[in-house]
Amino acid sequence: MLDCMIKVAINGYGTIGKRVADAVAVQKDMKVIGVSKTRPNAEAFVAKQRGYPLYIADLSKKSAFEKAGLSVVGSVEDMCKAADVIVDATPGDVGATNKPLYEKLGKKALWQGGEEHEIAGFSFNSSCNYKSAIGRQFVRVVSCNTTGLCRVIHEIDKEYGVSHVHAVMVRRGSDPGEIKKGPIDAVVLDPVGVPSHHGPDVQTVLPHISITTMAMIVPTTMMHMHAIQISTKKPVNRDRVIDLIKNHPRLGLIKKTLGIKSTAELKEFAMDLGRQRSDLWENCIFEESIYANKNELCFFQAIHQEADVVVENIDAIRAMMGSEKDEVKSIAATNAALGFTTIQNNH
Amino acid sequence: MLDCMIKVAINGYGTIGKRVADAVAVQKDMKVIGVSKTRPNAEAFVAKQRGYPLYIADLSKKSAFEKAGLSVVGSVEDMCKAADVIVDATPGDVGATNKPLYEKLGKKALWQGGEEHEIAGFSFNSSCNYKSAIGRQFVRVVSCNTTGLCRVIHEIDKEYGVSHVHAVMVRRGSDPGEIKKGPIDAVVLDPVGVPSHHGPDVQTVLPHISITTMAMIVPTTMMHMHAIQISTKKPVNRDRVIDLIKNHPRLGLIKKTLGIKSTAELKEFAMDLGRQRSDLWENCIFEESIYANKNELCFFQAIHQEADVVVENIDAIRAMMGSEKDEVKSIAATNAALGFTTIQNNH
Amino acid sequence: MLDCMIKVAINGYGTIGKRVADAVAVQKDMKVIGVSKTRPNAEAFVAKQRGYPLYIADLSKKSAFEKAGLSVVGSVEDMCKAADVIVDATPGDVGATNKPLYEKLGKKALWQGGEEHEIAGFSFNSSCNYKSAIGRQFVRVVSCNTTGLCRVIHEIDKEYGVSHVHAVMVRRGSDPGEIKKGPIDAVVLDPVGVPSHHGPDVQTVLPHISITTMAMIVPTTMMHMHAIQISTKKPVNRDRVIDLIKNHPRLGLIKKTLGIKSTAELKEFAMDLGRQRSDLWENCIFEESIYANKNELCFFQAIHQEADVVVENIDAIRAMMGSEKDEVKSIAATNAALGFTTIQNNH
Amino acid sequence: MLDCMIKVAINGYGTIGKRVADAVAVQKDMKVIGVSKTRPNAEAFVAKQRGYPLYIADLSKKSAFEKAGLSVVGSVEDMCKAADVIVDATPGDVGATNKPLYEKLGKKALWQGGEEHEIAGFSFNSSCNYKSAIGRQFVRVVSCNTTGLCRVIHEIDKEYGVSHVHAVMVRRGSDPGEIKKGPIDAVVLDPVGVPSHHGPDVQTVLPHISITTMAMIVPTTMMHMHAIQISTKKPVNRDRVIDLIKNHPRLGLIKKTLGIKSTAELKEFAMDLGRQRSDLWENCIFEESIYANKNELCFFQAIHQEADVVVENIDAIRAMMGSEKDEVKSIAATNAALGFTTIQNNH
Repeated sequence: MLDCMIKVAINGYGTIGKRVADAVAVQKDMKVIGVSKTRPNAEAFVAKQRGYPLYIADLSKKSAFEKAGLSVVGSVEDMCKAADVIVDATPGDVGATNKPLYEKLGKKALWQGGEEHEIAGFSFNSSCNYKSAIGRQFVRVVSCNTTGLCRVIHEIDKEYGVSHVHAVMVRRGSDPGEIKKGPIDAVVLDPVGVPSHHGPDVQTVLPHISITTMAMIVPTTMMHMHAIQISTKKPVNRDRVIDLIKNHPRLGLIKKTLGIKSTAELKEFAMDLGRQRSDLWENCIFEESIYANKNELCFFQAIHQEADVVVENIDAIRAMMGSEKDEVKSIAATNAALGFTTIQNNH
Repeated sequence: MLDCMIKVAINGYGTIGKRVADAVAVQKDMKVIGVSKTRPNAEAFVAKQRGYPLYIADLSKKSAFEKAGLSVVGSVEDMCKAADVIVDATPGDVGATNKPLYEKLGKKALWQGGEEHEIAGFSFNSSCNYKSAIGRQFVRVVSCNTTGLCRVIHEIDKEYGVSHVHAVMVRRGSDPGEIKKGPIDAVVLDPVGVPSHHGPDVQTVLPHISITTMAMIVPTTMMHMHAIQISTKKPVNRDRVIDLIKNHPRLGLIKKTLGIKSTAELKEFAMDLGRQRSDLWENCIFEESIYANKNELCFFQAIHQEADVVVENIDAIRAMMGSEKDEVKSIAATNAALGFTTIQNNH
Repeated sequence: MLDCMIKVAINGYGTIGKRVADAVAVQKDMKVIGVSKTRPNAEAFVAKQRGYPLYIADLSKKSAFEKAGLSVVGSVEDMCKAADVIVDATPGDVGATNKPLYEKLGKKALWQGGEEHEIAGFSFNSSCNYKSAIGRQFVRVVSCNTTGLCRVIHEIDKEYGVSHVHAVMVRRGSDPGEIKKGPIDAVVLDPVGVPSHHGPDVQTVLPHISITTMAMIVPTTMMHMHAIQISTKKPVNRDRVIDLIKNHPRLGLIKKTLGIKSTAELKEFAMDLGRQRSDLWENCIFEESIYANKNELCFFQAIHQEADVVVENIDAIRAMMGSEKDEVKSIAATNAALGFTTIQNNH
Repeated sequence: MLDCMIKVAINGYGTIGKRVADAVAVQKDMKVIGVSKTRPNAEAFVAKQRGYPLYIADLSKKSAFEKAGLSVVGSVEDMCKAADVIVDATPGDVGATNKPLYEKLGKKALWQGGEEHEIAGFSFNSSCNYKSAIGRQFVRVVSCNTTGLCRVIHEIDKEYGVSHVHAVMVRRGSDPGEIKKGPIDAVVLDPVGVPSHHGPDVQTVLPHISITTMAMIVPTTMMHMHAIQISTKKPVNRDRVIDLIKNHPRLGLIKKTLGIKSTAELKEFAMDLGRQRSDLWENCIFEESIYANKNELCFFQAIHQEADVVVENIDAIRAMMGSEKDEVKSIAATNAALGFTTIQNNH
């Protein structure tokens, strides 16, 4: 391990944090110098197994951790001091409360999409605005849904010009490991109002895109599903769209040959391929669903809510540190370290 | 009971058939002369409790029915002979096989949307094309999703002119009483291809409407949810749209005051109101979701897959029999007999 | 409406409260003098539709209710003053906080099983200990699961003597109208520890019964399922057990003839029978599952978590008021007013 | 790869087959000489990625496979000829139809628990009857539920003597990758009758055990949950039971420290630990649930329906081939090759 490695702290070792930690750990130019937990639960044992130094928010709970067989290195502030950059993966409303600490210590920090754009004043997507993130102290990586939308809309916009997007997000009710959240048997409008926040959120990254989004929640734990209609300025060619997807490092094409037509089969395939945690870091666009008719393009894409932002976090770190100025190279480095080639290369 | 009453037979006493039977039974101008079952199960006991004469497809099973305490009046052919019109509510692929019997007996018959348009050569919706059904021998009442789409699209088209519709249907995986069908934890594209059959199916009723539909199945038993975007020829006024909904006999407005934002809460409300089987015969359009921006109109509507076609069947019977020439009067009669006022009148 | 009618207030008009209100309303010897709500939501409109005077906990919210078109009669304290007895159907932890009010006003009150036994010092079940409730100021009606267990264990105990009960409760995750609670895809041990609280809770009604219970939660909204094994002192005769069930006014036998093998089909049958809210007030014991082998009796029973305690509340009111000293007569009166005969009488 | 390696063919590369193939592939004394598929779907691409020679049942479909980019080596019969032993992991009813082929070729074969005991005349569990399988031509590895029951009952029986077992199996409705099977919102008795087939099935391995089993299906994809009560001949000591579990190579103890109380959290933990496919090959017994009171022992155990039989298949192969006479050594070898230590060693 070289001194020149970027020292990354993960504040909040949960669904996203544990994945970012593992992704950092395999990069050649960065290392995990610590992760934080609030309670000594199963994930804390996972951190121990992976060898990540464990820090805790409230040092008065140190004995509770140690009683459970978990060594505690120090406080979250200790961890932040030792880091070059902090990935804040704490729950939705908590992240904002950590900003004063990062400011006090003069540390770079990046938040997840559960926080408002204003927390960092800059919302990030590797394919859309990497260069604008270079050298920034604070960055917000947009949410899983917004990340999935930005990637594909930007690509279509570059080729055909986007007049308007109508996107319907059918969201999973909880992550697979959560047991308290529902619904069990309902479709919940979330929000009832139109447009949902996703449209404006896309515009924090791609301000010129006209987009109306509608969102609901359904009783599944596996991936979000987007039904997307894009009105384009130039007529769309279906084969060309397929090529754009194939050539994009974060857009995956689920070929018709696979016979996959659901999120469940898709996760099973990722699992069978041996991907860590069955993660799908790419947009999963169903080849058979791609419909191009004059200036209208429709398709379905599945978005793995636990995974797609993980790779964006890695790129954001590099941009903020200024160690890599070219997004193409950063994306390639991130992907290579994870052994990640988009899913169409596996069949 | 008068001789001039329309004698209706229900071939297939299941999810739709049992509801149509009960709806026929309360109309002043028609009566149930028989229902058919293939097996002596719980629904057969319900038919007995309601006093509907029970007929069976295969008379060799008569003793099995009688052993269970269920009297059998005769065969399905016997039932059809005694009827003026047969409502075929048999499962999807079975309905077509019954057509030769109806033809042989020279009886009027109507099928459900699980059958192809070609079976009757005419696809029906009370609000859209009632008059064209007058006197026909064969009619197909379109499916629950298509019925819900036709009602609202036709109303908007009359007022603003429809340029194009983009509708995403999030469908329930099974009816509440089904236990074999899934999915349990997946979003299933059904079909993967775009457009789904719903768009062309709308065109069997409204041929001039341009529409792209996308459909998926989710793990819920309660209602379909439609996310609809309509591009209009004239600019849309939100208040006017709300008035159109309020004034339509089969469009229901779920006012924001109710605090309802899901299919589950909606069914609970219908149950609490004392509606039979908690049925929602109307489109349930969420007031808060209605979004009008220049020539774009978006909204969510929930469609009760077991119920919305029931009232259409009743109207179709009247049209086919020629006993009522005016759809406004038929719809009013159907609704009144069921004690049905659209849901906004209950709050 | 006679002056001698028992004046009942329902504090908490939710899942249980709305059902108790409707059950009170149809009894010949009692009437609903008011129901309380905290927020002007869909259920408040249902109360209005039913004609129940509406009271609210916090009078400062009166304008919010009236703005929504809901008349408010007064405060919860006003309502209690006007009542002979208050049915407290507020959520689990809230009920206990209302006790001082009932004590101050010197009113009789009964709570649901979400409260501790100690709140009333007496836990009630119509079939087990009605007479001990006569004249009491405070009574707790035990929970849905405990009610279902007490009814059947007491009946078997009277006939055969119970040595030990092993009961496994597979509980629904949320009620049908709830949308926030899960799990979506998990079996949750609740509690992990053995025995669950249900065993000791049965003993608040039947102190001498030896019982070990285990409980879990699964992703369904429809009914709890109990897998019960009873070790008896005398050998068990299966036909006699079936007769005991048939002759008990709150034990229902799901005959094999119906072909019903799930909670979903059972609720569908109750709905088809025209029961209000598809409620199943009786234990639903599956005939085919009844297994008797020497001193071992096993069976499955489904318990409708929203309904089975409703009829117990009605009986408890009569016992507390002392207006009926005989449980057989009270149970018969309650059942008759609801048009309730146990389900085996419908097939 | 040595000539002395056992040549294993996997007939049926699905949920179980693909796991057995991967488990065989890592053993030092055996190798996968082929797997079979009936259709060119996603799993066929996984076989290709893993480098398993692909055989197909119906050679007329060879071109369909090759068109999809999948090389076909030959027919299922060709594959069987090349094998020393065939693991038949075809669906439930299909396995029996393959027996004549295995007999004709004079090959050893083992089936899964979906087949009847009579197919092989011997039902296998590594911990219970390994030695009786030595040299046999045909063996049936019992089902996932029966495997889980046999392991733990046998261990308790050796220590305390088992008088009677009452086991309630709460089964998952479908595997995670299945999308057609339900239920979506129901508890289904499967079978309604008591006892379920699991009790007699345990007796195919442990004939002297008295056991009553009850089984139901719930809407989850993750693991079965067993609620077990064992009446013992000698009084039970809780600490000793915990030690028995800790020392058994296929019984896992989910320590209270982990804070895990559901199947979902358990699968998440297995995933985080980096286990292939998040598989749990061991019984997962919840420490906190272990309840010992005189001669009564109760506990919950979760059984991963896709995984627990996989390791038993490997041991069965060794016993049938006669290459290892000692079950302790075979189990140790199987576990070591998979890097499998029971879950309590990870925390």
